[in-house]
Amino acid sequence: MHRPQDPDFEARVRRSFGKQSVMETIGARMTEVAPGATTIALAVAPHICQQHGFVHAGIVSTIADSACGYAALSLMPAGAGVLTAEFKINLLAPAAGDRLEARGRVVRAGRMLTVAQAEVEAIDGERRKTVAVMTATLVTLEGREGIAD
Amino acid sequence: MHRPQDPDFEARVRRSFGKQSVMETIGARMTEVAPGATTIALAVAPHICQQHGFVHAGIVSTIADSACGYAALSLMPAGAGVLTAEFKINLLAPAAGDRLEARGRVVRAGRMLTVAQAEVEAIDGERRKTVAVMTATLVTLEGREGIAD
Amino acid sequence: MHRPQDPDFEARVRRSFGKQSVMETIGARMTEVAPGATTIALAVAPHICQQHGFVHAGIVSTIADSACGYAALSLMPAGAGVLTAEFKINLLAPAAGDRLEARGRVVRAGRMLTVAQAEVEAIDGERRKTVAVMTATLVTLEGREGIAD
Amino acid sequence: MHRPQDPDFEARVRRSFGKQSVMETIGARMTEVAPGATTIALAVAPHICQQHGFVHAGIVSTIADSACGYAALSLMPAGAGVLTAEFKINLLAPAAGDRLEARGRVVRAGRMLTVAQAEVEAIDGERRKTVAVMTATLVTLEGREGIAD
Repeated sequence: MHRPQDPDFEARVRRSFGKQSVMETIGARMTEVAPGATTIALAVAPHICQQHGFVHAGIVSTIADSACGYAALSLMPAGAGVLTAEFKINLLAPAAGDRLEARGRVVRAGRMLTVAQAEVEAIDGERRKTVAVMTATLVTLEGREGIAD
Repeated sequence: MHRPQDPDFEARVRRSFGKQSVMETIGARMTEVAPGATTIALAVAPHICQQHGFVHAGIVSTIADSACGYAALSLMPAGAGVLTAEFKINLLAPAAGDRLEARGRVVRAGRMLTVAQAEVEAIDGERRKTVAVMTATLVTLEGREGIAD
Repeated sequence: MHRPQDPDFEARVRRSFGKQSVMETIGARMTEVAPGATTIALAVAPHICQQHGFVHAGIVSTIADSACGYAALSLMPAGAGVLTAEFKINLLAPAAGDRLEARGRVVRAGRMLTVAQAEVEAIDGERRKTVAVMTATLVTLEGREGIAD
Repeated sequence: MHRPQDPDFEARVRRSFGKQSVMETIGARMTEVAPGATTIALAVAPHICQQHGFVHAGIVSTIADSACGYAALSLMPAGAGVLTAEFKINLLAPAAGDRLEARGRVVRAGRMLTVAQAEVEAIDGERRKTVAVMTATLVTLEGREGIAD
């Protein structure tokens, strides 16, 4: 289990997520925040799809990356900001159904670098299927003008 | 240099890109198509940003992934479809400026798997800066119901 | 749980591992084989280290890649061969201690592509610490001259 | 072009490479060092192979990772050490022939993080073929006991 350094971590994470205007554009919302873990839900809809009618891999990445990034931020000290250094995603199955859920969790939290992983599930009625797995490296930013969360 | 198998490759790539509804949502358009290479341009705008006002890494990935995928498709036989198996992206600098350009090119085209790389530049007035590099693995789909490009 | 297609999967995996001469060079051995999962152990020793005295990231990758590859092979039909298309590894902590253990497991087994993940732990006396995580994409080869496992 | 901060960069890189005992084990040597770029050569030999007689993907990774890491170190200040945070490698073709050459070059050098890419070629008589491409993230370590290069 991870211990947050900032007791106010949940409010901070939700506030920062609220500033990600892209989430409103694609129709995503943050459903759960715990120390070192977050969940983001996305309704499957035509305006976020690729040519075969599945959610575009980049949009699947958008929610998985934010799920990882906010899992990381939840463990960072107050006043710090989070940036993604890199990520890798494997698309395991077409992202189709009613909605997607990206669950991110911290694998290792360092002072400077945090590694997190996310799993994205497609939910179709009662059925759940893993459609993607991501591993991301996040950077803790401290004392940078304009980069706080 | 790559030799396309389908003489109609450019029209096919552009037609398929035109079916990626997410591109209209984010404001991206395909600017160049050559055998084994494509370019996608994206205007930087508030509705695709993350919490610090930069374009979200997932949206940068969206154009880089499609630039790779369509670079791959341009070399595939007529009737084939393309799917992304996985990609990895490194974010080198904040994605800010007037617009982004993702240039994808095929590194190796196999019968079943194609590897492509993309570079994303941010253009701000006269200045160009590389903000991300991606490596992607694409799958050639043949004879699958509903999956053609 | 994964169901092997080849009842002889364990013997086949161990026989193929026995042909990986690099494993003798570095001092690795396969300890466990189950359907969709394998474990490889490696004694930490000076001849596999980098400049700070830790096991080189490439050697950590060697056992993690084989743990993933053989987890994949364990689910493939008899006569098939396995090749790694790509992998990504995050090094979480220096690979030091008495020995390393790489545990690979299949995340999704497809006809053509299998995705597997590995975790590498460093064991130092009674202490265990995760030092690396890998995600790999493996290809099933069928009917290729000289490429069977 | 990259400007080294340490005028003694080449000697420092070669000295550190000389301490990577794994390189002697596998039969690799550093052939070129320039600011932000290095080349490592590896003779193909039975003791570094996998089950089909090709050089093991992990050994290909070993030289590619060091080519990236030392390309990064060549641009770091005197007294700093380099560690690999993560890398991703795509294996494009079987690693066979007379020898392999991994050429690493820095894509972006930051104060804390450096991104580098490597290409690995297999040389067989007069023929050269790209067999792998890697992207790596390297960390600059300063002021850590025992971690200098």
